[in-house]
Amino acid sequence: MNRQQLVKQITDKKNYLCVGLDTDITKIPAHLQSYPDAVFQFNKAIIDATKDFCVSYKINTAFYEAMGIKGWKALDQTVNYIPSTHFKIADAKRGDIGNTSAQYAKAFFEVYQFDAITVAPYMGEDSIRPFLDYENKWTIVLGLTSNKGSSDFQQLMVSSEASEKQFVYEKVMQRIAEWGTPDNLMFVTGATKPEQLEDLRKIFPEHFFLIPGVGAQGGSLKEVSKGALNYNGGILVNVSRAIIYAGNNEQFAEDARTAAKEYADEMKDYL
Amino acid sequence: MNRQQLVKQITDKKNYLCVGLDTDITKIPAHLQSYPDAVFQFNKAIIDATKDFCVSYKINTAFYEAMGIKGWKALDQTVNYIPSTHFKIADAKRGDIGNTSAQYAKAFFEVYQFDAITVAPYMGEDSIRPFLDYENKWTIVLGLTSNKGSSDFQQLMVSSEASEKQFVYEKVMQRIAEWGTPDNLMFVTGATKPEQLEDLRKIFPEHFFLIPGVGAQGGSLKEVSKGALNYNGGILVNVSRAIIYAGNNEQFAEDARTAAKEYADEMKDYL
Repeated sequence: MNRQQLVKQITDKKNYLCVGLDTDITKIPAHLQSYPDAVFQFNKAIIDATKDFCVSYKINTAFYEAMGIKGWKALDQTVNYIPSTHFKIADAKRGDIGNTSAQYAKAFFEVYQFDAITVAPYMGEDSIRPFLDYENKWTIVLGLTSNKGSSDFQQLMVSSEASEKQFVYEKVMQRIAEWGTPDNLMFVTGATKPEQLEDLRKIFPEHFFLIPGVGAQGGSLKEVSKGALNYNGGILVNVSRAIIYAGNNEQFAEDARTAAKEYADEMKDYL
Repeated sequence: MNRQQLVKQITDKKNYLCVGLDTDITKIPAHLQSYPDAVFQFNKAIIDATKDFCVSYKINTAFYEAMGIKGWKALDQTVNYIPSTHFKIADAKRGDIGNTSAQYAKAFFEVYQFDAITVAPYMGEDSIRPFLDYENKWTIVLGLTSNKGSSDFQQLMVSSEASEKQFVYEKVMQRIAEWGTPDNLMFVTGATKPEQLEDLRKIFPEHFFLIPGVGAQGGSLKEVSKGALNYNGGILVNVSRAIIYAGNNEQFAEDARTAAKEYADEMKDYL
């Protein structure tokens, strides 16, 4: 899916909601547990219930990897089940030396047909290039994450002779913005620090931001939207647990639909 | 495998060689290509041929993920085939918010029985803790990597009021050393900058270093060993392509054995 198509989805549906399929087999409703493909059955019901109220799905690969080969089958079934109208993100946080990143890119862009993958920046340019080399695919690099640990390294100050002091995450994002374009590169920018989001939007007026941290992690949708929306939307706000585990009995899909609709309705006001 | 057992392997075998199973289906000998489980057959032959001359195997997950579900089967078969005398590393470069890293830890320490996993540090403490929480398992965090891109972010200078300027990778390693111990934490420290390795050994006299970059990436075993060995070994030097692709016909396993033996013999001199 290219930028124009993604923007059209946001404009048509009047929301920028990404539903995070962090599906934990131990947390899905009891009546589904007996299915041999319980995780896929759960995801299928969630997708059917929420697809009218979101523009994207994000599959957190860790939850599938923790189930072994069965998990990869569920991931494969799920990504194939997501409608082609929706932007499909592999939240995989991969990244390695060039020849190895090329293998990860192949996995998530060719073997599994994702539109985008999240990538960790620590190893620098040659670890990110192989993802950017794919046409009509997106690389979503970690900038400022939403967790407590983001203060450990991302928020250190770097100094150079030429420039003023700046945060590691700003320096990282500015360098990476030289390697991609707003048509193939997004950044993960956490929702838990709205004032930092606002600053980042000034530095990167064009790039899409994937924003985790709203919902179970405590970020405010209102503040995030105020700080990070740009002229054509320009953000995807991910909500995982607060939608997919909104209910935990036979009505779970209906509860997820209600939760997704609430987020989508609120977004309509901000767009 | 605990530290004492790993040190004993190194002392008994008189080498610190880790063979990297970066097995690319397109690069294995033609006569194996027709096997339905060609990658496992290749790995099995490599393991049989090299196990007397190494103390560890490192499986680069990207190459298996790029084959889809079939790749995960090959990974599973391979990790089960590695003798229990050998230290088993999942080179997976994972890391995410706490609840997600816990899923990755479950995948590689419980579903697949690795002794160790490589982890990316960008997301900070809560992304690393879940791996460290496993008893008798190891977390190998990226410090200074061996690729060109290591200069982009790892070698920036951080400034703080209290201390002198230092490299990002030094700061990262010093903070992480507060969260683990030399009994459950190692660092990836690339072989391509021997003088930096020497400096790191001074700062971290006890920790094991996993050292990639020797062989196809050009690092010198002699310089690396001189700079990084400590009183009980304290390093694992990984060689992937230069061993597993030493030959590419029916004699490939014998060629791999010869290559591994050469590295092991050289290591005996440095220990």
